[in-house]
Amino acid sequence: MTVDVVARLRERLGERIDTSPASLDAARADKSGHAASAPPLAVVHAASVADVQETLRIAHATGTPVVTRGAGTGLAGGANAGPGEIALSVRAMDRLVEVCPDDLLAVVEPGILNAELDRMLEPYGLWWPPDPASREISTVGGNIATGAGGLLCAKYGVVRDAVLAVDVVLSDGRLLKLGHRTVKGVTGLDLTSLVIGSEGTLGVIVGATLKLRRRSPFTPRTLTAVFPDVRAAARASAAVTASGAQPAIMELMDALSLAAVHRLLGLPAPAADAAQLTIQTDGPGADAEATQIAHVLAAAGGTVRVAADEAEAALLWRIRRSMHPAMETLGTTLIEDVSVPRSALPDMFDEIARIEAAYGIRIPTVCHAGDGNLHPNFVFDGPDVPPLIWEAAGDLFRAALALGGTLTGEHGVGVLKRRWLADELGEDQWELQRGIRRLFDPTGILNPGKVFAD
Amino acid sequence: MTVDVVARLRERLGERIDTSPASLDAARADKSGHAASAPPLAVVHAASVADVQETLRIAHATGTPVVTRGAGTGLAGGANAGPGEIALSVRAMDRLVEVCPDDLLAVVEPGILNAELDRMLEPYGLWWPPDPASREISTVGGNIATGAGGLLCAKYGVVRDAVLAVDVVLSDGRLLKLGHRTVKGVTGLDLTSLVIGSEGTLGVIVGATLKLRRRSPFTPRTLTAVFPDVRAAARASAAVTASGAQPAIMELMDALSLAAVHRLLGLPAPAADAAQLTIQTDGPGADAEATQIAHVLAAAGGTVRVAADEAEAALLWRIRRSMHPAMETLGTTLIEDVSVPRSALPDMFDEIARIEAAYGIRIPTVCHAGDGNLHPNFVFDGPDVPPLIWEAAGDLFRAALALGGTLTGEHGVGVLKRRWLADELGEDQWELQRGIRRLFDPTGILNPGKVFAD
Repeated sequence: MTVDVVARLRERLGERIDTSPASLDAARADKSGHAASAPPLAVVHAASVADVQETLRIAHATGTPVVTRGAGTGLAGGANAGPGEIALSVRAMDRLVEVCPDDLLAVVEPGILNAELDRMLEPYGLWWPPDPASREISTVGGNIATGAGGLLCAKYGVVRDAVLAVDVVLSDGRLLKLGHRTVKGVTGLDLTSLVIGSEGTLGVIVGATLKLRRRSPFTPRTLTAVFPDVRAAARASAAVTASGAQPAIMELMDALSLAAVHRLLGLPAPAADAAQLTIQTDGPGADAEATQIAHVLAAAGGTVRVAADEAEAALLWRIRRSMHPAMETLGTTLIEDVSVPRSALPDMFDEIARIEAAYGIRIPTVCHAGDGNLHPNFVFDGPDVPPLIWEAAGDLFRAALALGGTLTGEHGVGVLKRRWLADELGEDQWELQRGIRRLFDPTGILNPGKVFAD
Repeated sequence: MTVDVVARLRERLGERIDTSPASLDAARADKSGHAASAPPLAVVHAASVADVQETLRIAHATGTPVVTRGAGTGLAGGANAGPGEIALSVRAMDRLVEVCPDDLLAVVEPGILNAELDRMLEPYGLWWPPDPASREISTVGGNIATGAGGLLCAKYGVVRDAVLAVDVVLSDGRLLKLGHRTVKGVTGLDLTSLVIGSEGTLGVIVGATLKLRRRSPFTPRTLTAVFPDVRAAARASAAVTASGAQPAIMELMDALSLAAVHRLLGLPAPAADAAQLTIQTDGPGADAEATQIAHVLAAAGGTVRVAADEAEAALLWRIRRSMHPAMETLGTTLIEDVSVPRSALPDMFDEIARIEAAYGIRIPTVCHAGDGNLHPNFVFDGPDVPPLIWEAAGDLFRAALALGGTLTGEHGVGVLKRRWLADELGEDQWELQRGIRRLFDPTGILNPGKVFAD
């Protein structure tokens, strides 16, 4: 049976089928640190919609599970392919199909990288705002499949706000065109939004029509503020939101994160317990808003520094962007992703401190403070997440929910959070979501075991 | 059976049950001009979530259809209740439950009016951007149920972009809480977006958490430009979009509309064939963008007038806002709602001219030119839409689809467009949407015959 599937794939798709040990092994994992127990049957390097359809038809006919992958930069194990499964890579489908500056839209294949797309749009004066931290290495299709966020979400929205239409191949190989090319459109149910963030469980995204913005002619402004502790920094970020200013980016680094990055970059050690906010304003009000925010931060007890020029701004952002390499110097990391209402940020940091004390662990945390999305980093030794860390993570999720939050703001559920999903959704909604999944994929071959733990 | 349902409703809900002839007759119609063939069994004036749940439980137990209504301002017949049906009004559930300025959100009941909510938010310095033309008389719940748009959509998005969470009562009376209180959240499938725009076919919206904006401290600017014909005006609006300027509002009135309004308001008649753009800029760049746009409009052949002050701006907007009363002076009106990519606006106006000539009718048209959404008004005598007008409307829909557009940008499908829905969606997507509807409402009691024509 197994041999049969690979043989049938080869017969129809020839050189697109890859069973080299290195490729199979790479398809087991994403960037979450989690990997499937064993390699998949084969990797299909789809080069066209027809390749995807053919793969699904064979999978459907043989009852073989299919795990769709882009660049493998996910952080929840959602694209990890395991034994008996086909890893369907759409990474090679990376064309910018059409740019329409007059309608502020582009049509793309799913494998195009976020940053690469943005560079290709620059000559048109256009901008693709969704900017996950992984933008240089992550695909637009993966961005859409996970409903990813990024740094600019408070001002410019999440990826769902930037997608007009998606083309999707269903589990039996049929191609569906969902959504509109128009700004507005309300014909029937919004299946486009349903597919965005569905993590490969409803269909395979093979194309997207994206809503772009004009590049701004105004120079952004960057400022930082250092606070005596993380609670003060969190209170200050909430004060910025409450002030009515709208930063394009507002990032918070706690003391452990800041110290680790300073160490990595060879900068002077920050004061003990010091936490930092880094903020960018943009658009026609960039200067005025930077000044307004500087006052709010100073009034909240921060030591404020407004970058004098773009070179200094670049250095300040380098500190924030060095978070992940700095964490790697500490050990293996489980990057969590809870989100809370912005006013609850100080309380959430209190909860993190409580969990650190209760479990005897350290949890360096960075936070997209502009939208209330925290990334607590659980650091441990060895390749596998120890049970104690999972217990602490479970405690973190419950704390976020109790504060009106959610267990994942932008990384998705994948395999890593599926055990908590029903807790957040409630049984009725969980069953309804599973019902929708069965409607799209009656035989359950699309990314089984992900999200819904079925 | 029928008597039994009303008796059971009365037994449980007492004075909330209204069977007065005037109320039953009012529930037959919305503002589309279409009405159900006969009155419903009863109107339930729900005052609480529990009332809605009780109504649904009785309806479910007896297999009685339920048509949810807000203020009855819909334009597609989606809330019209007919024989054998319960009209479930949530208009009396109109509380502003919570305002959280620090998190830029509000929690509301569905029956609150859009403009009333916005006025209640003003003391907090907060703003509810979704602004259907009906905002003074339409409810937030109806806005969400139809996925409505309005004038500000190109810059500030449609209602879907402004809703974080919805509470929904299912067809069997269970209450579901969908969505998040956070800016970001990707736990499972996005059922919030699925319910938005579902026109009462998936559940009854009984509460919503809304994403607000700060009121801007900057004074908006208003300008108009008159063009020799509608194609020139449409080309100019496309040039404004292509220029990178972002008007908050950009409205186009064709020659028939403009002449009718001038007549109604006692203003001097415009030149024959003259069409007009009315544009508002806002935010910190309002002045600069108004100047930039004035240049684009002049270069496109427009005679430009920038309002000197707010009084003049108010007069200019009064002309646009008098469109519907002006149409009522011409006869009965079927207001259509096609949307096309903005660059296709000139071609769409050519299509409208072609249809006018082919059917020997006049189609005064206004257009949210900033987002490509047109409202062609089919004017006729008598209460019922004549077959010729339906034929012409069908021709209009096909023309919009051929230009990459959609048959409804913001009014919804209701009963008036259900016969064309499958044409736009394609058979596969249409079946999938019907499947989702059955999953939410297995016995088909929620707004049957609307949207999906089943």
